[in-house]
Amino acid sequence: MTEPLALGIDIGGTKTAFGLVNREAKIVLNGSIPTTGHGAVEQYVMALKEAIEPILEQAGKNNIIGGGAGAPNGNYYTGEIMFAPNLPWHGVIPLAKLLSDALGIKIKLNNDANAAAIGEMTYGVAKGMKDFILVTLGTGVGSGFVANGQLIYGHDGFAGELGHVIAVRDGRKCGCGRNGCLETYASATGVVRTAEQWLEERSDATLLRELKGKITSETIFEAAEKGDVFALEIFDYTAKILGQTLADMVAITSPQAIIFFGGLSQAGDILLKPVKKYMEETMLNIFKNKVAILQSAFSDANAAILGASSMAW
Amino acid sequence: MTEPLALGIDIGGTKTAFGLVNREAKIVLNGSIPTTGHGAVEQYVMALKEAIEPILEQAGKNNIIGGGAGAPNGNYYTGEIMFAPNLPWHGVIPLAKLLSDALGIKIKLNNDANAAAIGEMTYGVAKGMKDFILVTLGTGVGSGFVANGQLIYGHDGFAGELGHVIAVRDGRKCGCGRNGCLETYASATGVVRTAEQWLEERSDATLLRELKGKITSETIFEAAEKGDVFALEIFDYTAKILGQTLADMVAITSPQAIIFFGGLSQAGDILLKPVKKYMEETMLNIFKNKVAILQSAFSDANAAILGASSMAW
Repeated sequence: MTEPLALGIDIGGTKTAFGLVNREAKIVLNGSIPTTGHGAVEQYVMALKEAIEPILEQAGKNNIIGGGAGAPNGNYYTGEIMFAPNLPWHGVIPLAKLLSDALGIKIKLNNDANAAAIGEMTYGVAKGMKDFILVTLGTGVGSGFVANGQLIYGHDGFAGELGHVIAVRDGRKCGCGRNGCLETYASATGVVRTAEQWLEERSDATLLRELKGKITSETIFEAAEKGDVFALEIFDYTAKILGQTLADMVAITSPQAIIFFGGLSQAGDILLKPVKKYMEETMLNIFKNKVAILQSAFSDANAAILGASSMAW
Repeated sequence: MTEPLALGIDIGGTKTAFGLVNREAKIVLNGSIPTTGHGAVEQYVMALKEAIEPILEQAGKNNIIGGGAGAPNGNYYTGEIMFAPNLPWHGVIPLAKLLSDALGIKIKLNNDANAAAIGEMTYGVAKGMKDFILVTLGTGVGSGFVANGQLIYGHDGFAGELGHVIAVRDGRKCGCGRNGCLETYASATGVVRTAEQWLEERSDATLLRELKGKITSETIFEAAEKGDVFALEIFDYTAKILGQTLADMVAITSPQAIIFFGGLSQAGDILLKPVKKYMEETMLNIFKNKVAILQSAFSDANAAILGASSMAW
């Protein structure tokens, strides 16, 4: 192999996946290790080095142009992971430096959603776009806002917290300690909260009733696909809150497109059609019928590696 | 005079003010004409040319590096004023081209709030800042969002409509046809609506009661300065809605500062102290105690000319 390749590392709560990616978004070599069970972060970095070194050598280290890592609470400016609740290391971890030193390759760090946004610009549906919003609908809600062809990091690197915009004033309790954050409604866990709450409050028939207590966003989606009115209503309710919040975001950055990514967004039209409807209904006139609602073309498994690698180009 | 100068033109609903500005934000020559009463826009441009030509000649045309015009609904990308409800010309007006042709100077167009944001970056309290929000609290609420040292225009030039973010779901009717827009509460007209509504609903004593029907934001401010509890409560109520909305904006662009400008912001601490309090209370933890709340250092009369001129540097 002699083509230039970028290393992408996706650091998740349980697994760290990595891959070497070419300019055409093809992952030519890849692997993974568990994120947990290594003790201190230095041991984790050593284990990751041992797993990555062989594919670097196989590809030829001279072909590697650099790399990127995506992690929850990763800060692009400082290269640090800061107080990530779902990672095994606490406090402030200078991960970009640790990885760069261990691998002998310049590694840039970012949070998952920002990495995904750069990935879409580099390889994906946002190629050529200068103004768009990437929204990840997973366990939480993340986002990367791109304006003038650049990611908005803010003065401290913490910009893009769409999941913690207050969607419902005095609404549901959020893990952040506040109430009504978008991610308490429009995430995989948010729709489950809606389902469980409605099952308590209501008595109408639904396929979900027998799953009470072990409902997932997937089972809600499956029920909705079968035409279950209760499940469809959950998606409609979620879409209304999400669409209304996005209408406000459009008023600020006027994006060409909003690109959805992550587990819950795989519900596709069942979620995104009503999102578009409610967003258009709620939006200021000058923005109507101008904002495309798109889904990422990457599979969930690959997208994080692609996103992380894209920072290197 | 041999120093370089920039022409700034501030197009308001009743008056068009202009001035030549040096690099130190000093307006060295200025003048104005009425905006209305000229008939077609071409006649207005001719009248403006006649008024501006003498100061260009006085300054020496070779010293003029260029110019900018700020106008409601001015679009930076197209150079057009688009459907401005408060200007005498309807539809789409290619004002940047008309002015550039008439004056023989390249004139850039922008909306007032964006021009003000560039003005603050060029001459004002935002000098050296790369991430901030400029908020104008006048008849309406306008805004210019700056990220990575650049104004966010969006894909169509219409970004930055903070005044039309829904601050209160199903709230007050807005001129835009929707309900609950921030500017129906947090503008000079918004606080008057609050006052008039409360006077209808409540019977507590206030200096404002005898002004019922002819209250202005200034009279509310004067009453508040005298310690009128009713008037102070209006500012507190307004600040809460504004502060909560700004907390959401901070989550998106993580600015170093929010800079206030325009008539209502001259209430100063009476408004901005509670704005800061409510914003901090509502904000996600990672943003707390990091965002400065500032007032523009320019007088209202000069700021628009300075802002418009700043596009030329």
